[in-house]
Amino acid sequence: MYRDDYGELITSLAIKNDRRICLLVLDGLGDCANGKRGTGLQIAATPNLDRLAGEGACGLLTPVATAVTPGSGPGHLALFGYDPLVYTVGRGVLSALGLEFPLGPRDVAARLNFCTLNAAGEVTDRRAGRISDDENRRVLAKLREALKPPAGVEVFLETESEHRALLVLRGDDLDDDVGDTDPQREGRAPLDPAAAPHHESPTARMMADLLSQVREALADEERANMVLSRGAAKYPDWPRFPERFRLNPAAVAGYPMYRGVARLVGMETVSAPQTASEVTAAAAAALATHDFVFAHFKYTDKTGEDGDLDAKVAHIEEMDAALPALLEARPDVLVITGDHSTPPSMSAHSWHPVPVLMLAPALRGGQPPRFDEITCRTGEIGTIPAKEMLPLAMAHAGKLEKFGA
Amino acid sequence: MYRDDYGELITSLAIKNDRRICLLVLDGLGDCANGKRGTGLQIAATPNLDRLAGEGACGLLTPVATAVTPGSGPGHLALFGYDPLVYTVGRGVLSALGLEFPLGPRDVAARLNFCTLNAAGEVTDRRAGRISDDENRRVLAKLREALKPPAGVEVFLETESEHRALLVLRGDDLDDDVGDTDPQREGRAPLDPAAAPHHESPTARMMADLLSQVREALADEERANMVLSRGAAKYPDWPRFPERFRLNPAAVAGYPMYRGVARLVGMETVSAPQTASEVTAAAAAALATHDFVFAHFKYTDKTGEDGDLDAKVAHIEEMDAALPALLEARPDVLVITGDHSTPPSMSAHSWHPVPVLMLAPALRGGQPPRFDEITCRTGEIGTIPAKEMLPLAMAHAGKLEKFGA
Repeated sequence: MYRDDYGELITSLAIKNDRRICLLVLDGLGDCANGKRGTGLQIAATPNLDRLAGEGACGLLTPVATAVTPGSGPGHLALFGYDPLVYTVGRGVLSALGLEFPLGPRDVAARLNFCTLNAAGEVTDRRAGRISDDENRRVLAKLREALKPPAGVEVFLETESEHRALLVLRGDDLDDDVGDTDPQREGRAPLDPAAAPHHESPTARMMADLLSQVREALADEERANMVLSRGAAKYPDWPRFPERFRLNPAAVAGYPMYRGVARLVGMETVSAPQTASEVTAAAAAALATHDFVFAHFKYTDKTGEDGDLDAKVAHIEEMDAALPALLEARPDVLVITGDHSTPPSMSAHSWHPVPVLMLAPALRGGQPPRFDEITCRTGEIGTIPAKEMLPLAMAHAGKLEKFGA
Repeated sequence: MYRDDYGELITSLAIKNDRRICLLVLDGLGDCANGKRGTGLQIAATPNLDRLAGEGACGLLTPVATAVTPGSGPGHLALFGYDPLVYTVGRGVLSALGLEFPLGPRDVAARLNFCTLNAAGEVTDRRAGRISDDENRRVLAKLREALKPPAGVEVFLETESEHRALLVLRGDDLDDDVGDTDPQREGRAPLDPAAAPHHESPTARMMADLLSQVREALADEERANMVLSRGAAKYPDWPRFPERFRLNPAAVAGYPMYRGVARLVGMETVSAPQTASEVTAAAAAALATHDFVFAHFKYTDKTGEDGDLDAKVAHIEEMDAALPALLEARPDVLVITGDHSTPPSMSAHSWHPVPVLMLAPALRGGQPPRFDEITCRTGEIGTIPAKEMLPLAMAHAGKLEKFGA
């Protein structure tokens, strides 16, 4: 449905030079007003961000599309210059990324939920009473022993948490044309993964056989006596970031999900910092060896999801104070933004466009020295799709050729 | 690849009336800040433009796409209401336009570069030592004598400059499925224009035969003993401006390239002014006979490419002073903008959106009396694709019907 015309245009214009771009992501940065207090960025004391705004260019990024709230995967893919409506990631792959499972091109990953079946084979609890992580590990160990995949196929089983687990099939010529087996409500039997329209897929038939082995192996369990499978997805065969943009990218991120998304597009994960000062120091170090550095700071999102405005403000201020260490590495272009908004008043991701600040050569100026959602509205960058931000940074770094003569 | 949905929509709504639109293009108008001095438009004393801004509507135009620097062809096509990503112009056609070669629908144009081959047939100099224009003319004359095209086909050869020349084949049923022969680096033989995927093209085989005749005819030359061909392109079969927009267009432009692009979409070139006062006088005159006038002023771009900020400022002021002559002709809608930005600090075209000013009926007001890149950010027009500006001018001139009942 969606196409990647813009991405292909940028690839056709990309050239290599020695300038360095840093993309610093404050996860979940954007906010809405918190009553009269304003947004987190308005409340926080951010002398460095404000000064950089006055010297730089500001704007707002729309992560996916107007009104659409992104997950972490789509939010980051857009910032990496991949249209998240074109480059969709299956749930199985996202689970694998979150566990830092080393997914490869021969793999198909699916998300498993333990469930409880009654004697008639109907699901009576889609979450198997939310078993403990320990029980999850115990039952998975039993399955690892029991399952007999076809010759040439390996099966990997990994605990996520509670009733959640990851299944990875590895082999030649596997496909992901595999049906979800979750009947979505209780009182029904699990669905057949090889039912139409998946009946032509050898992998779907293999999954059906493995699931019947699971049922046999877990017959004596009280709660977790079956699994439901969904989101079977192959390792995506996407254009790799180094070829797509002619950049040599490093990812500096402490959380498995972000490291995973970075690796998915072909970035090298070079360090795993957690605190703001660790993030900026690691980003500065990576700029010595890479011409593109993605640096990720998690806590602005985590506190937003917790609904804790004061903690989000404190983490914004923590990152503001940590910025000088990154500035000392003198990236030619520095982009500071978020992958989506996470308003503490919503305790969730939201669709609001995300403030962005770019420090770069060849700017127009006229930006007030203040970085927040309101001043960003009238900034030089305007309100643009997030997927266009990396190309814009490349233009300012002299990394895009002219289109047409 | 790209589609022209918006253009087709506008065509379906276009109606004829007697109101007149003038599009005045100050080539390369946009700028970035020149340190603390600001942009060229901010520095220049422009009492007329500032007054018109206060009475009119302002905004910014994105010529091709975010971050993409346009050549002159794409920049103008967008202002003419043709999406430059849909209506792409081959290099051969651009060369023909730049020479004002009267290209027609039976023509295929290619760009030639004289080169030097060694005895083994390998390219040793892809530019034949950058031969002089005179030597270029001498060798082309020799080729004109020697080449024997097939019956029914005419060959035209025109000097561009140094090692560059234009080849035009004219005949029935020619195609442009012809491969480039430039091997892109020295030490290799020229490529076969009829190699796959071009092996089914009769024109590619004709080109291969003509190039072997060239090699024979130039065998005794020391430097320019062969040509490399690229960008073979047919005269584009595009919707013509008069039918696309129901306008009777005149082009007032002194430089061959812009006259050529105007003719390519079906405009009549009515005069060739150079200075600002010549341009506005010629535009005013053309408005007496045409309901759409495109007027082109070159020097804001030329001085930008020269990196001469003061000269660019002087030419902006020159045009500002020349505006009253155009205003006296009372166009119903007057659009003043550029085809792209040419910041003197970059001495090149750039990707920055271009300021635009429109004087028209049915405006909302609220625009400060100042025309520059910064005030344009918050103007009535917003930041829109350049291809949407002509339709917007048409709307203000009452030339677009309602969509739906």
